[in-house]
Amino acid sequence: MTKTVLLKRLQEEMDRPPFNRWLAPDVISVDEPGQRVDLSLAFRQDFSHHPHEPYFHGGIVAAFADAAGHAAVAVFYSKQAPTITLQVDFLAPALGRKLSATGILRKLGRSISRADVELECDGKLVALARATFSTKD
Amino acid sequence: MTKTVLLKRLQEEMDRPPFNRWLAPDVISVDEPGQRVDLSLAFRQDFSHHPHEPYFHGGIVAAFADAAGHAAVAVFYSKQAPTITLQVDFLAPALGRKLSATGILRKLGRSISRADVELECDGKLVALARATFSTKD
Amino acid sequence: MTKTVLLKRLQEEMDRPPFNRWLAPDVISVDEPGQRVDLSLAFRQDFSHHPHEPYFHGGIVAAFADAAGHAAVAVFYSKQAPTITLQVDFLAPALGRKLSATGILRKLGRSISRADVELECDGKLVALARATFSTKD
Amino acid sequence: MTKTVLLKRLQEEMDRPPFNRWLAPDVISVDEPGQRVDLSLAFRQDFSHHPHEPYFHGGIVAAFADAAGHAAVAVFYSKQAPTITLQVDFLAPALGRKLSATGILRKLGRSISRADVELECDGKLVALARATFSTKD
Repeated sequence: MTKTVLLKRLQEEMDRPPFNRWLAPDVISVDEPGQRVDLSLAFRQDFSHHPHEPYFHGGIVAAFADAAGHAAVAVFYSKQAPTITLQVDFLAPALGRKLSATGILRKLGRSISRADVELECDGKLVALARATFSTKD
Repeated sequence: MTKTVLLKRLQEEMDRPPFNRWLAPDVISVDEPGQRVDLSLAFRQDFSHHPHEPYFHGGIVAAFADAAGHAAVAVFYSKQAPTITLQVDFLAPALGRKLSATGILRKLGRSISRADVELECDGKLVALARATFSTKD
Repeated sequence: MTKTVLLKRLQEEMDRPPFNRWLAPDVISVDEPGQRVDLSLAFRQDFSHHPHEPYFHGGIVAAFADAAGHAAVAVFYSKQAPTITLQVDFLAPALGRKLSATGILRKLGRSISRADVELECDGKLVALARATFSTKD
Repeated sequence: MTKTVLLKRLQEEMDRPPFNRWLAPDVISVDEPGQRVDLSLAFRQDFSHHPHEPYFHGGIVAAFADAAGHAAVAVFYSKQAPTITLQVDFLAPALGRKLSATGILRKLGRSISRADVELECDGKLVALARATFSTKD
């Protein structure tokens, strides 16, 4: 698959669940040999922790981390991969107008797969996440 | 504080972040001696994992779990308590029109507090969550 | 199976791995309908965090939590159930001469099972753990 | 501090708790600018999951992961840093005679610090861990 086709396919899969259509993350790039996917999320007022500052709420950070982990798995596994466990470690307030997530596939197993996610807000590391997905045939 | 006043205060705090206003969870009851809070979330199409079935997306389950953990801490700690770590274990698909969360305070510490959250969808246990919050003075 | 037989079987399974023989936890009781198992671990100098005080090291607390989670699964599942994920939240220093663990089965699934573990030292809650096990046929 | 002095200091700190003396991990190298520490653990029968094969038990993997996370923090923080949360994701059986751990400092905060740990057995990735430590002044 070419990179463009892969990107398009990932974006389409991402956009299938109505919740993801509401969240509206963008698939920015796919590094197939490096097993990495980059996603981006533009700030909207509904995402905010704070009434007047651009400050991504922890719930949005967690949901976006889950999406990025899924995307890293989806490059190599074309079926549904339900999340089994999602762990999010918050390092700093996600202040800014752009949240970026890098999903990194750590293991694609016959029944269980793992992905790491690193989240930056306006270039600053704000959270680390790790997720386990069911990838049994 | 009477139960009614406490419920009202919790609901007001919950509704402060714009994201929570979008999510719109309801504080159902507060059991102060038992250190438990019950919240409820009515299904909306934006929450869905599936285009045609009422199926709460994992990202919504995670965000709601975080809110319920916060609520359990907020009964006993009146300042902001940023989430440090959020762990969500998904047990079953959250199929149904009503997601209920029970937040249980496990420790209120001088710098770190913990809460457990149990999530049911239409009466079935669908997820367990545990969160660590910063409660330093 | 009678309680005595079940206790004996659990203790035998527990004692199979050489590491567990070194650790030497005792199966105290099994509550089959409540899906709970109680284990106990007597302090030894090799377990200690501190040279002169009885203070169970975090590594011992984690290893004992894993054993208690396994025991809760083993009552209902007779095959090997490798740990997929172990999460330990430390609440207080484990000071004392006796560490008790209650393993609680939360879900016995066709491929994934979950157990919660509560750990007390001399009667004080010192840690909470949650583990995911592989229980596929 | 020179690398040799730093290595020696870390090894001494590591060897202080009686449990670590029993476990006996070796500090192999310290990469101060990269905020990484490499540790090694030689197989012993007491560590084993299996009576006849060299197979590091999950409890040993978890305890060693905690030690490696601590070491990564200890390079930059000279006081005690109690573990708050330890999460271990097991990827493959730890079969072999040498378990290696790389501890990577992800954040040194004023009250909370984080480290990632990657564990390999005879060159194969067998587990990923992440830990939160208390580093308040």
